[in-house]
Amino acid sequence: MSESALEALRINARPGTLFVAEDSPPPRIRYFEYDEDVLEAGEVEDPEELRCYAETERPTWVDIQGFGDEACLREVGEVFGIHSLALADAVNVPQRAKAQRYPDHLLIVIHAPHESFGQGERLPQVAILLARDYIVTFQEHRYGFFDDVRERLANPQGLLRRSGPAYLAYALVDALIDQYYPLMAELAEELDAIEEEIFERASPELVARLHELQRRTTQLLRIHRPQVDALHQLARIDSPLVPEPIRIYFGDVEDHARQILGSLEAARASATDAMGAILALLGHRQNEVMKVLTLVGTIFIPLTFVVGIYGMNFDYMPELRHRLGYPVVMGAMAVLAVVMVVWFRVRGWLGGPSGR
Amino acid sequence: MSESALEALRINARPGTLFVAEDSPPPRIRYFEYDEDVLEAGEVEDPEELRCYAETERPTWVDIQGFGDEACLREVGEVFGIHSLALADAVNVPQRAKAQRYPDHLLIVIHAPHESFGQGERLPQVAILLARDYIVTFQEHRYGFFDDVRERLANPQGLLRRSGPAYLAYALVDALIDQYYPLMAELAEELDAIEEEIFERASPELVARLHELQRRTTQLLRIHRPQVDALHQLARIDSPLVPEPIRIYFGDVEDHARQILGSLEAARASATDAMGAILALLGHRQNEVMKVLTLVGTIFIPLTFVVGIYGMNFDYMPELRHRLGYPVVMGAMAVLAVVMVVWFRVRGWLGGPSGR
Amino acid sequence: MSESALEALRINARPGTLFVAEDSPPPRIRYFEYDEDVLEAGEVEDPEELRCYAETERPTWVDIQGFGDEACLREVGEVFGIHSLALADAVNVPQRAKAQRYPDHLLIVIHAPHESFGQGERLPQVAILLARDYIVTFQEHRYGFFDDVRERLANPQGLLRRSGPAYLAYALVDALIDQYYPLMAELAEELDAIEEEIFERASPELVARLHELQRRTTQLLRIHRPQVDALHQLARIDSPLVPEPIRIYFGDVEDHARQILGSLEAARASATDAMGAILALLGHRQNEVMKVLTLVGTIFIPLTFVVGIYGMNFDYMPELRHRLGYPVVMGAMAVLAVVMVVWFRVRGWLGGPSGR
Amino acid sequence: MSESALEALRINARPGTLFVAEDSPPPRIRYFEYDEDVLEAGEVEDPEELRCYAETERPTWVDIQGFGDEACLREVGEVFGIHSLALADAVNVPQRAKAQRYPDHLLIVIHAPHESFGQGERLPQVAILLARDYIVTFQEHRYGFFDDVRERLANPQGLLRRSGPAYLAYALVDALIDQYYPLMAELAEELDAIEEEIFERASPELVARLHELQRRTTQLLRIHRPQVDALHQLARIDSPLVPEPIRIYFGDVEDHARQILGSLEAARASATDAMGAILALLGHRQNEVMKVLTLVGTIFIPLTFVVGIYGMNFDYMPELRHRLGYPVVMGAMAVLAVVMVVWFRVRGWLGGPSGR
Amino acid sequence: MSESALEALRINARPGTLFVAEDSPPPRIRYFEYDEDVLEAGEVEDPEELRCYAETERPTWVDIQGFGDEACLREVGEVFGIHSLALADAVNVPQRAKAQRYPDHLLIVIHAPHESFGQGERLPQVAILLARDYIVTFQEHRYGFFDDVRERLANPQGLLRRSGPAYLAYALVDALIDQYYPLMAELAEELDAIEEEIFERASPELVARLHELQRRTTQLLRIHRPQVDALHQLARIDSPLVPEPIRIYFGDVEDHARQILGSLEAARASATDAMGAILALLGHRQNEVMKVLTLVGTIFIPLTFVVGIYGMNFDYMPELRHRLGYPVVMGAMAVLAVVMVVWFRVRGWLGGPSGR
Repeated sequence: MSESALEALRINARPGTLFVAEDSPPPRIRYFEYDEDVLEAGEVEDPEELRCYAETERPTWVDIQGFGDEACLREVGEVFGIHSLALADAVNVPQRAKAQRYPDHLLIVIHAPHESFGQGERLPQVAILLARDYIVTFQEHRYGFFDDVRERLANPQGLLRRSGPAYLAYALVDALIDQYYPLMAELAEELDAIEEEIFERASPELVARLHELQRRTTQLLRIHRPQVDALHQLARIDSPLVPEPIRIYFGDVEDHARQILGSLEAARASATDAMGAILALLGHRQNEVMKVLTLVGTIFIPLTFVVGIYGMNFDYMPELRHRLGYPVVMGAMAVLAVVMVVWFRVRGWLGGPSGR
Repeated sequence: MSESALEALRINARPGTLFVAEDSPPPRIRYFEYDEDVLEAGEVEDPEELRCYAETERPTWVDIQGFGDEACLREVGEVFGIHSLALADAVNVPQRAKAQRYPDHLLIVIHAPHESFGQGERLPQVAILLARDYIVTFQEHRYGFFDDVRERLANPQGLLRRSGPAYLAYALVDALIDQYYPLMAELAEELDAIEEEIFERASPELVARLHELQRRTTQLLRIHRPQVDALHQLARIDSPLVPEPIRIYFGDVEDHARQILGSLEAARASATDAMGAILALLGHRQNEVMKVLTLVGTIFIPLTFVVGIYGMNFDYMPELRHRLGYPVVMGAMAVLAVVMVVWFRVRGWLGGPSGR
Repeated sequence: MSESALEALRINARPGTLFVAEDSPPPRIRYFEYDEDVLEAGEVEDPEELRCYAETERPTWVDIQGFGDEACLREVGEVFGIHSLALADAVNVPQRAKAQRYPDHLLIVIHAPHESFGQGERLPQVAILLARDYIVTFQEHRYGFFDDVRERLANPQGLLRRSGPAYLAYALVDALIDQYYPLMAELAEELDAIEEEIFERASPELVARLHELQRRTTQLLRIHRPQVDALHQLARIDSPLVPEPIRIYFGDVEDHARQILGSLEAARASATDAMGAILALLGHRQNEVMKVLTLVGTIFIPLTFVVGIYGMNFDYMPELRHRLGYPVVMGAMAVLAVVMVVWFRVRGWLGGPSGR
Repeated sequence: MSESALEALRINARPGTLFVAEDSPPPRIRYFEYDEDVLEAGEVEDPEELRCYAETERPTWVDIQGFGDEACLREVGEVFGIHSLALADAVNVPQRAKAQRYPDHLLIVIHAPHESFGQGERLPQVAILLARDYIVTFQEHRYGFFDDVRERLANPQGLLRRSGPAYLAYALVDALIDQYYPLMAELAEELDAIEEEIFERASPELVARLHELQRRTTQLLRIHRPQVDALHQLARIDSPLVPEPIRIYFGDVEDHARQILGSLEAARASATDAMGAILALLGHRQNEVMKVLTLVGTIFIPLTFVVGIYGMNFDYMPELRHRLGYPVVMGAMAVLAVVMVVWFRVRGWLGGPSGR
Repeated sequence: MSESALEALRINARPGTLFVAEDSPPPRIRYFEYDEDVLEAGEVEDPEELRCYAETERPTWVDIQGFGDEACLREVGEVFGIHSLALADAVNVPQRAKAQRYPDHLLIVIHAPHESFGQGERLPQVAILLARDYIVTFQEHRYGFFDDVRERLANPQGLLRRSGPAYLAYALVDALIDQYYPLMAELAEELDAIEEEIFERASPELVARLHELQRRTTQLLRIHRPQVDALHQLARIDSPLVPEPIRIYFGDVEDHARQILGSLEAARASATDAMGAILALLGHRQNEVMKVLTLVGTIFIPLTFVVGIYGMNFDYMPELRHRLGYPVVMGAMAVLAVVMVVWFRVRGWLGGPSGR
């Protein structure tokens, strides 16, 4: 279903209704129960099988990829006691990035760039539901954002294995925010390339590229600003779900998010400045072109009029008969041309392309 | 009465005076008394008949559509003990969106888009008065925003029937805010269409469409910003009228309102950027056009002068008599033309439309 | 005295010095002592006569119009025990809008539009001094802002008579803020008129009108923003002078002031957008005009050169003697013209005024 | 020493080092010990002589003008027990405006306009050091800002003599902020003059004046914004150095500073708007000029081509021989001209300068 | 490794991983243990040798220049008990400026300009880790920012020797912030130079220089704004690591940083204004050039048409035969020219270059 069709559907719906885009695959549910000694990983078809993991004290991470089966998602919600609004926010993409407290859990919604970005205005959304003993993550597609975290979890000496679900939540959020760095580098390179070309050759294609850059930074800012707020909240949250020492880690991710925000804002400001510079350059070139035409026209149009006079066929034009008529007229025109050139030089029009 | 005539009337009026636009129909008063077991719905002519519902502890929703009878509205206010300022804010549209606490009730004023939007600058206003045991909603016209909530209320298993008036208030506000999604989708589509056309063919009609988009987003931002504030207040309100678990729901609507705000701000920024891009493109095309004229003029105006010389009718012009006069002049002009073309190529004017 | 002359005077003056514009009439002092049963109104020459009213517990409203007698104003200050800074702020117009607490009273300074606005940059200032048992209002001229409040005060059943001075202060402030509504309607109409005309015929007069609108909204924003702050303060003030139930009323005026602020900001944003649209339209028209000239020039200037060649008077120009010389040249020129028209059509210059 | 040379020097310097511009005269140290009964004024060469005044409880004002002797300034610091950072901030101009608390004193740094402004980017800085029993003021040059305060201090009945050093500090700050009023009046007049001229005759000189106005308001805003913050702090400071009743006075100066800030911001916004209006007007005039050229060119260039045809010297041009050739060609050209004029009128180019 | 390559690497990395640019030299580790009596300075190869200094109560400053050996840096972290996130922030440049509290230490990250700035977008980063008894500073290259602090430390009478590590931290931060002053002076000079030239001769080179200035101020603002926040935090921090009297010092650095911020923002605003002024000037010059061409064209193109008429070779053109034909035509053309000149003068086009 297209985004706008989905949005139309949502109106007048009961709160907590789940809407799923048609192209979302059926859910793939993987789980990882771990502590310092043991890591038990597996994949289940029926969320009911996860109930035992939901009830143990050992931390469990349930990763759901694909939303193509509403009943299944509802069952996940039921097994883990997820608030209906939290489940709806996790599944009904896109939501605003947030860190929302519910009585028994914390819902973190983050958007991260993916290769798919650029085609649309939407970044993939990942929802992380953090409870005392488990984490459930929701992804609409199989994005692979967490491949590396899974690998680190396999390492029995890793900090991940020795820490609780809050640290895992941090690691997941950190992995998502890290996705922005290559995107930022790409934006910076594109901006540099455009700025260089402006002063070389400003074409409509360059204006289009610059405008596209403006559009992208505007969209990214719209998506990213609430993320910074959500991370700010997490770094200062007063909840037993995020113990004090873990908040420092969230504070570190917040700093990265703010760094990205600063770069986005700077990119946006520079793009606007660049558009202004293009306008000034175009105005300058226009002047240069016009000066050439005006120069040529101002010198030759009057002279052409003069030679036109002596091309007239009146019977009684005594000058035409005079022996010196021709040289005198030619001389007068030469004087006129010289006067004009001098006048233009005085006004600075002939001082080269950068003249006044 | 026109909006400005109404506004003129309001000056120097006593606080609490009710002003009603002439085209507002007479009030249609419907009521819904409900709990888990029972739903009693009906319509009354005389607000006095509602007094019994105002006094029971069972939740009652009174929905008033049309303001065309001031006495009747005053009677509603009297029956439900509504503060005169609250009644005035509910009836004297348009008010700023707000969540205002009064000693015994809470007044929520929200504006929602309707098909009628686009003709004027005003969005329909809905006022929701939440008291301990009842809700009164005020709508100037029969907008139909709440048709779906009414249907859900008819379902005895629904959460609505099991929850108090605060949850109903949430459902009503949510229904109103949801109205913005199709409008946002429409704005986004219009913006995309305009941005695509800019680089195809920038016409005054496109500038007009873009400016109209700017005007609409400006108006929507003016109306929507206070809504976000009102919902923010509701999500954090410390009042027995909105119990703690319901505040999470208002927080969810607040998030939606903030998402809409983010989109509106991004649309406005993009529209401004697009206007800048149009200017740059027009400047570029202007240069392109001027270069063609300057090229042609600079080459042919001097040549025309030369042929004008030899069109003069002086008796004594020896060149005219010479056998080689004609070919020499033609050759000289050809050389001059070639020199000029080379000069233009050096300056980059002949390197194609995107040349410097 | 002109505003700048007055400002020059103020430098290095003792705090509390009173400066009065020369054109301010001598003070007209009216008083209204009232309670539910009695209304005693009158006019005095000598402020000393008011001392008895200042001392009773019955609420008294003293309205001073005209500042043309400094000694008299000082006496008012002395009779009512007004802080010297408060008196200076009330009389030395224009001050920034404020709600300033003094040990025994509260000074509210508000600016309201008047017919006189438009000639200058200054809106009339009204100062309202609220004490426990009396109110003193200061107006530089006889503006008539409070005519209606006076009438309502004459009604023994009115809320005004039953409430204390704080409610009267609210009624006065409300009357002042209401003055903005017709001004806002006028601005909105002017903006609509300008926006319509932009796409019809953009003239320097239109630019001037738009710039004047920008100037007015800038000035109004400068004056109005502190008013919103002052009303915000009043609605939350923790002072026995404004009892809790009256604060709701001030909150209502604050909402109106915020609505006006929102409209002013939207008007300013739209005016700026409109200026951008004018620029884009002018750029477009320029392109259109230039294309016509370039088209005509590019086709006919070379052709004129060609006919000039055959207007030369060389003795030996064999083509001139040839029977087919004339038709061949005419044909060649026709072909050249057709080629050029085709070339222009390919570049899109002949696809109508909105062509690329 | 030039400002940038001074700044270069400051790098890597020890905190508390004093840097003095070369053109600062040697210090002139005056003192005023006063209470209700006595005023003892004098001038000293050696700061050591002031030690007795520093130790009495009677308020003393020490005014230092000129920084040309570092040892002397250090001695002042030693005598009055001034924190080394406070002394450095007072002497190393320019500092950001501030109200900085030190354990034993309060340092207020304010900048005020002077005739000298306009040549540079710097406004004179005055530092006021307020302690329990004395005030020390630091001025780089003999600006004369405080002449009037000195006169008022001579008046034994004045409030200044009856109040402590905090009130004197207020009087000094008030005198400094009052310096802005004539500057603001001047800026407003210049802006008015420019805005009037824009629609009369927009010249490069006008653009330069407008840009200079922008530059000045930008600089003034940079300097003035921290002043508003400092005064805001003073009006709310919780320090025994500024007793409660004096804070109201500082609140009054804060209001003046905010009024100035509002005017500066409005001036800046209007200047930017004016630059936009100039652009639109230039675009319009350009269109007007181009339309004249295009009109003339479009009508006469083709006609000139036509007459050129019949100026060709082919032997066989039968039209030339025909009796009606001349009148027919002239008639055809007249028809062509009329058609073009009609076409231009239809496009609205001949509807006067404000035509489309 | 290039910056973007480094950024790509960072994705999916474990938190706390260290990334080092390839061109960073191997670490040079110097230490300074000092108190009022003793200063022991030295250089070590193996961080393990520093363990004794980490454990004494005497303050020690360890300065690390160059990150080219990850194992060594890790060992430093281990010896001084540095939190893994703190170590990562110190080494993985560039980080956002910050003042981050960890359980046992405080990490201050500051960026300072260096000659190397200008080539890239990155300012050198310095991290200062402040613990109770020691300070560790991290610099990627041998920048020499602290040469002067080292010299001052050598002076046994200096305040540095008598104060603890917090004062040393202040001295280091102050030295870094002071690096901005010459940069600010340079920016101000460049801006002045550009603004002067605008009204002299606006060239594409000038636009490029102005745009470069915009780019630099944007980058500097992005880097510097978080620094002001970090210093603001330090000046108000409630930590035993920064005793109360030292906070005043950090407050002073904060003021300097705010002054720099104000200058950067003013420079950015002025640069944007200057670009607007360039546009207006170019528009004006364009008008001037076009008026000349239009003037010449409008006068001479019709006249050339007239002389073309009498250059036609029709046999029957009676005017040609008339004795007065020539003078009459010449006179008529003179009249036409005069009429046009008068018309142009009326429109104000001949009132000089600044005409309307």
